[in-house]
Formats: sequence, structure tokens, C-alpha cells
Amino acid sequence: MSAMEVVKEDGRARLGSVRTAHGRVDTPVFMPVGTQGTVKAATHRDLREMGAQMILANAYHLYLRPGDRLIKEMGGIHRFSGWNGAMLTDSGGYQIFSLGVLREIKEEGVTFQSHIDGSKHFLTPERVTELQENIGADICMSFDECVPYPSSYEYTQASVDLTTRWAARCRDAKKHTDSLLFGIVQGGAFEALRRRSAADLMKIGFDGYAMGGFSVGEPKSVMWQMADIVLEYLPEEKPRYLMGVGFPEDILEGVKRGIDMFDCVIPTRHARNGSLFTATGRINIKHARYARDEQPVDSGCSCYTCRTYSRAYLRHLFVSHELTSYYLNTLHNLFFYTNFLERIRQSIADGTFREFYENFMSQWKGGD
Amino acid sequence: MSAMEVVKEDGRARLGSVRTAHGRVDTPVFMPVGTQGTVKAATHRDLREMGAQMILANAYHLYLRPGDRLIKEMGGIHRFSGWNGAMLTDSGGYQIFSLGVLREIKEEGVTFQSHIDGSKHFLTPERVTELQENIGADICMSFDECVPYPSSYEYTQASVDLTTRWAARCRDAKKHTDSLLFGIVQGGAFEALRRRSAADLMKIGFDGYAMGGFSVGEPKSVMWQMADIVLEYLPEEKPRYLMGVGFPEDILEGVKRGIDMFDCVIPTRHARNGSLFTATGRINIKHARYARDEQPVDSGCSCYTCRTYSRAYLRHLFVSHELTSYYLNTLHNLFFYTNFLERIRQSIADGTFREFYENFMSQWKGGD
Repeated sequence: MSAMEVVKEDGRARLGSVRTAHGRVDTPVFMPVGTQGTVKAATHRDLREMGAQMILANAYHLYLRPGDRLIKEMGGIHRFSGWNGAMLTDSGGYQIFSLGVLREIKEEGVTFQSHIDGSKHFLTPERVTELQENIGADICMSFDECVPYPSSYEYTQASVDLTTRWAARCRDAKKHTDSLLFGIVQGGAFEALRRRSAADLMKIGFDGYAMGGFSVGEPKSVMWQMADIVLEYLPEEKPRYLMGVGFPEDILEGVKRGIDMFDCVIPTRHARNGSLFTATGRINIKHARYARDEQPVDSGCSCYTCRTYSRAYLRHLFVSHELTSYYLNTLHNLFFYTNFLERIRQSIADGTFREFYENFMSQWKGGD
Repeated sequence: MSAMEVVKEDGRARLGSVRTAHGRVDTPVFMPVGTQGTVKAATHRDLREMGAQMILANAYHLYLRPGDRLIKEMGGIHRFSGWNGAMLTDSGGYQIFSLGVLREIKEEGVTFQSHIDGSKHFLTPERVTELQENIGADICMSFDECVPYPSSYEYTQASVDLTTRWAARCRDAKKHTDSLLFGIVQGGAFEALRRRSAADLMKIGFDGYAMGGFSVGEPKSVMWQMADIVLEYLPEEKPRYLMGVGFPEDILEGVKRGIDMFDCVIPTRHARNGSLFTATGRINIKHARYARDEQPVDSGCSCYTCRTYSRAYLRHLFVSHELTSYYLNTLHNLFFYTNFLERIRQSIADGTFREFYENFMSQWKGGD
């Protein structure tokens, strides 16, 4: 039985759900990012109240601290953290290859230094699969190499082939039957390599497919060009996940193409920088123009922050470096995202996705 | 009509309420500290849910940022911040005299440099009264000089007399009739000066009386010795406020002596340092001994943090420097304090305060 159920299509946009050991997750879905097993400046209660059904944690970070074996001893991440919704863990490939940590790649695996204390570690696809199972993720990701942009064709080709061999080893190493394993299509900005990566991963066979290696500095047009190519290969009956994307307009573009899953640090990281989402774009609450602004951040928003606090007060909290500022801003931005996805799903259900897309894009101004 | 209503006495401990423009506040009361107009890492919703009826803000901080005139323009602190419970503002004397800012004291007022940007300011008792009225505090405090411990008898005597003259000027400058003005008894560690300060303030007449200049490094025995002396002078029908105190055991000692109001940064500041209150004392959640501890912080506590999270997970959040850690820890510690005061009030209502006091003191171990 497939993990993906598609109940309605509107153009290529699809409405459905992914079945996990911690409940069905309505798709298209946005997963708030909880790198260290917690969504920064939010609580489980907040996430539940705003309707978040699945969050993302990072296996690399949890492996280093508090350790996957400790989490396993504690009964898994759900019991350890108290989060009873679905959880996906990224394998850590992106962190190890993109965050500037010292590392050495071999066929067998990768040696790297911890970003926390400089200690040396060696991770193989088998161990990365085991640590995600120890953590107790509902969806595990294959261990992939994520190449920087731009990279040469030769380097990218070798990397894609290594990623494919590692993906097959992850597949073989997977023991638990109550969690899903996704393959990650790589290939940088090269059409031929994206095709090769997608085709090879299909042959191995996964519970779902992700597109990785985006949001690393390439132009957006390149990302969509590559995504369109990869999407030709992805089967209807499996979830499709665009990793690390993105702004609301990017998510809408992705949904239009038939992508089901998204994650990004944007709503939470922007919140901590004072950048808040409204129906027409972002505002930065630190600006002096909001010092006497009695309006809520977004007059159409029903989140706790907008129901309770004025822009003027939120600005005061932000410029005063109050912890409450990060909390209230995060609550608002995550509510904006979960509500946005809710409206997207509703429009597909109603058969009005195209109209929703046009309306949103025509009024959306992006950043302030 | 007096602002204070005493409904029950048990020994010298008293149960009652202080009437403010934003509701009656049950006493004895602990006021969470929101220096900059917000209780650090908490929201209004949290404070309401745990039963906090009055919070404290600092006039000095709000004067510097965002400015008392801006708050007045915005309709006062309640409208500006969205907090609809009672609010007391400290005058800023303690900040100006104790926080190491450069200042020069004259009869007319005090010149000092802002701790934010080094800008020069001059504040008089009249202006400090006005700025608390602009802020819209329900309870305003007189502008006092707070002397360090130890100070000489001569210096302290001159300071007490200046504080008394300033208090009289605050009384004269007070315009609003819907807020209360409290006098602050000073006098350092000198019995004669505490008597002199108390007697002189009684002659001027205030809506309530505070004891200031404690928790500045003096032994606790000195504080209680001085407080006992001052309490002889304080009228039954006025609220009595021990400023900046303290740990649970200090509050219990104060209530036993007939004190009605307390404030302190301890629950919030300790929370941010990982020091959490339990029925028998504090634990520091960062200790390795909690890494696998599945219990809540306090098994008898019904706060959101204890209902949802294990010590092991809270330790992980703390050592990972997660913002959620500060939020959850603050929620717990403030809940501990509000619940502690609730139990104190109940014991006075039941006529079992003495028993409550003995029980608490016999099991309380303080810090870990």
C-alpha cells in the first residue's frame, strides 16, 4: 500500500495525504523546521493550534546532540520530545556538505568535524539510516551529497552517482517497517544529471522522492527548470518533496507543478530578524514607521499575535531585544504559512487553485 | 476610600486585595517583572492563564525606550501593550543609582547617562511622576535614592532626607486620580534612619508604602530586622510592599510579617539560566544527571511545561540554546510563583498559614 493518497487534482496541483505512523498528513504540506528537535521559539501546543501536522528535524544535529542512542533509549523522538505529530528527519547531507564543516568524502562514507566541539566523526549511509531509525523519524531521508552551486559537470556527475550508490545502501540498511524512506534526486543545474539521478533512484525504489540541492545560490529559473525535468520521472502514487523551499510564492509555484511537501527555515528565521508576513508581502517590524502603528501585523490574520498585539508594541519588543518578540513573531509567521497551505488545499478541493494562484501572485509584493 | 481591603488575618499574615483602575488584585501578591513593559519570554496569555493579576514595569526603561510620551500618545501602557491587568511602575531610582550608570545627584534631581546610548538625561521627582502618569501605571512609585550596602550613616541620613523631600514633591506633582502613589521607605541598615524615613513619609501620606533599598548585598537578617522596624509604622489600611524580594522562603517570611506585595526577577532570570523551582527547591536543568530523566520538572506541578515536557528534553533544549527553552522554563517558574502565592492566600483564608509556613520551610532546600 502506498504512503500517498491523492484525492483531487486541479491542473497538476494535487490534494491528498501522506500516511505516517503518527497520523495522516494533509498535502500539500509545509513542515516547520525544528533542526534540533524543536521548532525555534515555538511550543508543541502552538504548532498543534495552528494546524501543523508534521515537523522536520535534522538527524545530523540530533546525532551530535543529544545523540541518537540517547533518544532511542528514551523511547524515540516522539516520546523524548512530547511531539505526537509526524516527524521527518533530514539525513544531514546538506549540513555536512554545505555548512562549511571540515569533511572528507570516500566511497564508504564521510569523515567530518562537529560544528559544536570539533570532535571527529565518520558517517556511512548505513549509520545515517540507523540513526534516523534510532531517532524514530516517521520519514527518513537517504544520505546524499549536496554539491555547491556552481559545480563542474564532472564533479556533479561523480557526486550524483555516489549519492545513488549511497541511496541504495540506505534502502538496504532500512530495518523498520513503520517509517518511510525517501530518495533524494540530485544533479545540480545539469539537466542530464537530474535525469540520470531521478531514473536511477526510481530503479532502486523509495517510499517517496525528494528534490535536493536547491536554494544553494542558483537562480530560481534554474531551480524550476530542473524541478520540471525531475517531475517527469516521479510516480503519481508517491509523495514529492521539494527540500528547503521556500517563500510563499515558491511554494505556490511548486504546488502548481504537483509537489506535495515543502520545508524551510524562512518563516522562523525571518521572524527572529523581525521580518513578518502579511497578505501582500513582508514588513520589517524594526522600522521606525511602525513606532506608532496601532494595527496588527496583518489585519486579516487571526493568530494570537495579531489578535493581541499592535505593530507599535511588537516593534518595541523587537528593538528592545525581548525574548517575547522572537516568540510572538515566530507564532505569526508559522501561522501565516500553515494558514497559507490550508488555503491552497482548500482551493484545490474547490477546483479554484488557478484562481487562487493568480490572485495571490497579483497582490504579492515579497519583501518590504 | 482606601485602596486596600483586608478580609482576613492569620497571625500578622493578611489576606485582602488592592483596588486598581485595572481590577482588584488579590494579596499577598507576587508581581512578575516586565522591566521594558513585557515579562521576559512570556506572553499576556500565559500570565493570565497562570493567574498573574499585576505586573511590574520600569519607568526608567520605558522613558528611555520607547519613551513615555509615545506610550501616552498610544493611549497608555495598557492599550499600547495589550496587557489589561494591573500594572505598577517602579520609578527608576533603583536603576539610576544601582546599575552603575554615570549620574550626578542634586536637590533638584539627577543627571545621568542612558545605559542604551550614553545620551544625557535629567530627571526630577516631578518629571518621574509625570512619566509614570504618561505611561499610565495603576500604581506609581515615588522617586527615591537607593544607597548601596554598606554606606555610612552620614551619607545614608542625607540620602533619606533627600528621598523624603523628593517623595513630597512626587505627591504634589501627582495629577491623575485613578492611579495610586506609593512612598518608599529607605534608610539602609540603620534602625534610626528607617524609623525617620517611615515616620516622615507617613506625615506626607501615600496610598501605600514600600520598603526599598533591600537585596543590595546586606545579610538577610539585617533586611528582616529593618523590615520589622518599618512595619511598626505602616498603617493597617494601606498596602505594604517589599521591593525586589525574593526567593519563595523570603516571600513567606514577608507574608508572615504582614507584607502584601512582592516583586522579583528571580523566577524569570533563573529560568533563563536553567534554574527551575520544584516543591523542595531548585534544580539546574543543565546538569548531566537530567539527560535521561523522564520526569517532569516537578511532578506536582500542573503548568504547561510540566504537563508536556520531560527534564531530559528540557535539558536538551537548554544545552542547545533553543529559544523555546527560555520560554518553557519561564512559564514553569512563574507558574510556580503564582501558584505558591495562591496557596499562601488559601492558607490564610483557611486559618492554616502557620502550618503552611512550617511545612514549607521544613521541606525547602533552596538551590541544588
